[in-house]
Amino acid sequence: MDRYAPFREIARSHGLDAVALVPGPNFHRLYGKNFHTNERPLVVVIPVEDAPAAVVPNLELGSFALIDFEGEVFDWRDQDGYQAAFDALGRAMPLARIGVEGQNMRVFVHHALRSGMPGLEVVDAERAVSGLRLRKTPDEIAAMERAIAVSEDALARTVAQVRVGMTEVEVERVLTRELFAAGAEDFAFHPIVAAGDNSARPHAKARADYAIAPGDALLIDFGARVDGLCADITRTFFVGAPSDEARSVYAAVLDANAAGHAATRPGATAHDVDDAVISVLEAGPYADRIRTKTGHGLGRDVHEAPYIMRGNDQVLKPGMVFTNEPGLYRIGAFGVRIEDDVLVTEGGARSLTSFPKELTIIG
Amino acid sequence: MDRYAPFREIARSHGLDAVALVPGPNFHRLYGKNFHTNERPLVVVIPVEDAPAAVVPNLELGSFALIDFEGEVFDWRDQDGYQAAFDALGRAMPLARIGVEGQNMRVFVHHALRSGMPGLEVVDAERAVSGLRLRKTPDEIAAMERAIAVSEDALARTVAQVRVGMTEVEVERVLTRELFAAGAEDFAFHPIVAAGDNSARPHAKARADYAIAPGDALLIDFGARVDGLCADITRTFFVGAPSDEARSVYAAVLDANAAGHAATRPGATAHDVDDAVISVLEAGPYADRIRTKTGHGLGRDVHEAPYIMRGNDQVLKPGMVFTNEPGLYRIGAFGVRIEDDVLVTEGGARSLTSFPKELTIIG
Repeated sequence: MDRYAPFREIARSHGLDAVALVPGPNFHRLYGKNFHTNERPLVVVIPVEDAPAAVVPNLELGSFALIDFEGEVFDWRDQDGYQAAFDALGRAMPLARIGVEGQNMRVFVHHALRSGMPGLEVVDAERAVSGLRLRKTPDEIAAMERAIAVSEDALARTVAQVRVGMTEVEVERVLTRELFAAGAEDFAFHPIVAAGDNSARPHAKARADYAIAPGDALLIDFGARVDGLCADITRTFFVGAPSDEARSVYAAVLDANAAGHAATRPGATAHDVDDAVISVLEAGPYADRIRTKTGHGLGRDVHEAPYIMRGNDQVLKPGMVFTNEPGLYRIGAFGVRIEDDVLVTEGGARSLTSFPKELTIIG
Repeated sequence: MDRYAPFREIARSHGLDAVALVPGPNFHRLYGKNFHTNERPLVVVIPVEDAPAAVVPNLELGSFALIDFEGEVFDWRDQDGYQAAFDALGRAMPLARIGVEGQNMRVFVHHALRSGMPGLEVVDAERAVSGLRLRKTPDEIAAMERAIAVSEDALARTVAQVRVGMTEVEVERVLTRELFAAGAEDFAFHPIVAAGDNSARPHAKARADYAIAPGDALLIDFGARVDGLCADITRTFFVGAPSDEARSVYAAVLDANAAGHAATRPGATAHDVDDAVISVLEAGPYADRIRTKTGHGLGRDVHEAPYIMRGNDQVLKPGMVFTNEPGLYRIGAFGVRIEDDVLVTEGGARSLTSFPKELTIIG
């Protein structure tokens, strides 16, 4: 059993001599380990045939030994710099065309590869390589369920502590403390805690100088990472009674979220799901508040394929997990987003998230 | 006052037409804001003269408005993809040679820039651009002191809970909970909690299946992020009485740490500090256990310039902050590292970390 077979097949079918991996979600899935890299490049190169090779910082050799690497390792020490190791790799394994993870590899590694292999063409193979992670294993799904349980537990404890007059940053601190107390090993991403007009910014940053006012929307978008897998959940609460407009918007988003779930089944495409969701929003009075696609895949990376948007003809298959997160955003006023993590099953879909979605007044 | 003046000067002095920034530490320092990017590229391009321009995901426009951007913005929607925005940027601002943050920009952004500007040469300007962050402002130093205070508080509470028989993962969980309870806004990096033979791996990952044994070294390397700035602290404890060899190694590392502090002053080079530290270790009986340089700069990024290593002739100046973290690692047995965060002052150096460094037996 060759653990590199899927990568070799990608190289073959894309006319590449090799695929390169750097630490990140694909590396982690392949080896069950990851590395701090920072200023120190670490690259594994997997050719169509033959053994792989790697460039590894010398100080990581002890950790690298844990992955039982099959090929030659070119290590380098801080004092010497890394280019000589890339040059040695280029001599040992001269390549003309290599596929890389475009959303993960940084430019300095790209430059080091090209310096070591003059004339090398670097192709962005992100879609194919990360495509190997599309269908989650039972272990991965179980880890996501643990991440979601931790997150929902933390969310329940957080909203019980929210009061009018708290700042967004204060709520973020409560959420953070509760998330790690509940057992998160890391954030899946830095939480979004946005009240009032800030909730209309899909990726808002919590403010220290805005106190939650009566009737404010409070959008909380966050997730734990557990055993390397991510949760990603959004709920929008109201701190005190919402306006009629806010109630109406909330109902529209909740309808769209339900339509997304209903449209999710094997054989449907990512386009179909987004189209179902967006059509609901477009049919209502708030079409000009649509600002995002329906969702994104979720796994070891918090944003990965499949991207749930019109025009994406990717066919859904059992084991795929993605977010169903319609939202409506009135800039300068408020926004509502309701986000679930949905697993495609043999028979349709199962929401991994179970936090209540009815309009909820807190504080 | 042109906030882009230092970037324009870098472009001019390096023969570049422009400098590009993506979200990350330089972006954050310039604008006081950052962005989740993931699969959605966001780039600001700063030419030698004239207004900057930017490619921004449509859903981020509300957040982007907060930075009071001075130039043209090419936004793009998920459904359309980003390349057309890069193409429009290329038509509006045709460039031949651009400097980028090589350790921060990812390959897919590099490719999008080059597709939009045929013939574009992309130069790694990381050193120059991140060099603007070398000397910390009083506000940045104050934030680092807060991050360090939070971290040291969490460390004290954590070591009080360590007992023989706990696993590394259990200790990591305690540390994480205490770190966020103490007020961390994020990890500066994922903590390293390594006992016994794992402590000999400089960037070890905590194991769920290793129980701390009597006499084990317990290396904890971690830090909080507060207001965007990082702490990075390592202490090595012993859980029960250490061996004579471990005591001797500990004393050698502590001597090296002291030598590093003593060598730190304005006008000395990064080489000088590393040379002082490594010379102490080389003069002892454990020279074959040296595996890392002395340290790295610390600020908005947990690893940044100045890199404290032989051969680096960077001159130290007041306001620079770096780690002084000598270590000795006997692979398969144990390692010791003692890491402080040191500020270069007008008169010499001040350690921002103050957690006790004497050999400490816990549990």
